[in-house]
Amino acid sequence: MLYVIGLGLGDERDITLRGLEAVKKCDKVYMEAYTSLLSFGLSSNGLSTLEDLYGKPITIADREMVEEGADIFLSEARHSNVAFLVVGDPFGATTHTDLVVRAKKEGIQVIAIHNASVMNAVGVCGLQLYRYGETVSIPFFTDTWRPDSFYEKIQRNRSLELHTLCLLDIRVKEPSLESLCRGKKIYEPPKYMTIPTAIEQLLEVEQMRRESAYSPDTACVGFARLGSEDQMIVAGSMRELLEIDFGAPLHCLVIAGKTHPVEEEMLDFYSLKNNFAE
Amino acid sequence: MLYVIGLGLGDERDITLRGLEAVKKCDKVYMEAYTSLLSFGLSSNGLSTLEDLYGKPITIADREMVEEGADIFLSEARHSNVAFLVVGDPFGATTHTDLVVRAKKEGIQVIAIHNASVMNAVGVCGLQLYRYGETVSIPFFTDTWRPDSFYEKIQRNRSLELHTLCLLDIRVKEPSLESLCRGKKIYEPPKYMTIPTAIEQLLEVEQMRRESAYSPDTACVGFARLGSEDQMIVAGSMRELLEIDFGAPLHCLVIAGKTHPVEEEMLDFYSLKNNFAE
Repeated sequence: MLYVIGLGLGDERDITLRGLEAVKKCDKVYMEAYTSLLSFGLSSNGLSTLEDLYGKPITIADREMVEEGADIFLSEARHSNVAFLVVGDPFGATTHTDLVVRAKKEGIQVIAIHNASVMNAVGVCGLQLYRYGETVSIPFFTDTWRPDSFYEKIQRNRSLELHTLCLLDIRVKEPSLESLCRGKKIYEPPKYMTIPTAIEQLLEVEQMRRESAYSPDTACVGFARLGSEDQMIVAGSMRELLEIDFGAPLHCLVIAGKTHPVEEEMLDFYSLKNNFAE
Repeated sequence: MLYVIGLGLGDERDITLRGLEAVKKCDKVYMEAYTSLLSFGLSSNGLSTLEDLYGKPITIADREMVEEGADIFLSEARHSNVAFLVVGDPFGATTHTDLVVRAKKEGIQVIAIHNASVMNAVGVCGLQLYRYGETVSIPFFTDTWRPDSFYEKIQRNRSLELHTLCLLDIRVKEPSLESLCRGKKIYEPPKYMTIPTAIEQLLEVEQMRRESAYSPDTACVGFARLGSEDQMIVAGSMRELLEIDFGAPLHCLVIAGKTHPVEEEMLDFYSLKNNFAE
């Protein structure tokens, strides 16, 4: 049996009772490392708060292991209970869908235990979830690679008066280009896109395209560490948010479409003036 | 302090550890009744499983109470810790946003504790969450009231190759027309739209409009009791799902846009042939 268990967004206390019960039944516990090392008190050496809570060791499964080494834990799951822990909800990322497909194909029973994800927790800012269009991803621009397919999607959402959730790039365990050339993988330090970087890139693309999908005056909401006790949520124009230090990752950004009165009242609590008056 | 706590989708074990801690700190516990009476073992007489878990009584707050009688629990929240429990995630419904806005305006500190909602849990079927367009609501048609604004939204999503989540109508504590005429409120029994009813209405509108937003052959996924142990998920065409008895509420429906190979592999596990072979 393979349990795919969402841990939610904050820390070890965001697991559900159902999720915790399942972990306790499992013989082996894996945890995806893609985003998890951030908030869950896990480090490569030393017991984590999660391990204390579960009373058993956790094996960190990085992306390579999930994609290439899945055979190991699938064969374990055939004969025993295996937990695969995922930050947020289990089905936020394609990687986990792949794993579930493989397990099911091999006749392994899979039980998913849901939790909050960024996709629904952004509702906290007051912009109604049913008024979002397609979600976009903003990748880190490099000197030679500046993909901007997000532009049309934002443009379309805004022309339909819909809000847009922008997921910001995370680069964990990327082999450095230099090391690849030398034939030996050395990994870059992890890199998480900040809200100001995302906005810089967004505005750069707008300046190139000049189709007024958005502007420095467009209303946005920046979220850092959403769901944690020290989460930071600020509503303001792109120009305003560009100047704000949101602190530690993860960050994400919502570009507002047309807002309704209740949405505006709620956003107001997160506006610059109210945020920094407290 | 007002804690707005998401309970998740299944039963009492879907609360998070953080949510349970908060409930235990509260002097007064309210629970929205809009959808909650279904799955959480609550009845008007008799102790519920939730009350057993929390070790304290729960006051059911129906829609009227939340909208009209909010003064009571806001005044309590000024001087003590009050929990307001919500099925799913706290910000799934506008009603709760209203309540939070009112509390914040009165200077009451509000803490939201997130959980899974239908909006992200539908990810379990394999259709990727970032490929959904705007969410639509399908209201019960009556003889005189057949609003079909969902049609253009579905049409638009499908022309963009995006999936559409359809939330199906829930009518709880609606005064009967007859009783209103007599000047005394008598409530209709609760009514929950089933997947076949939703599809009938969808096809009726398509027959009227004839703009091919979708057809009886369009691929869909029906979800009943999503997140519960007895959840039922079936992928099939509208024509196929029309014939299926999904059992007890709540139901929701996803109309697929263009599907990718990984999405198709996953959907296949939920197809009619695989669903009823088990």
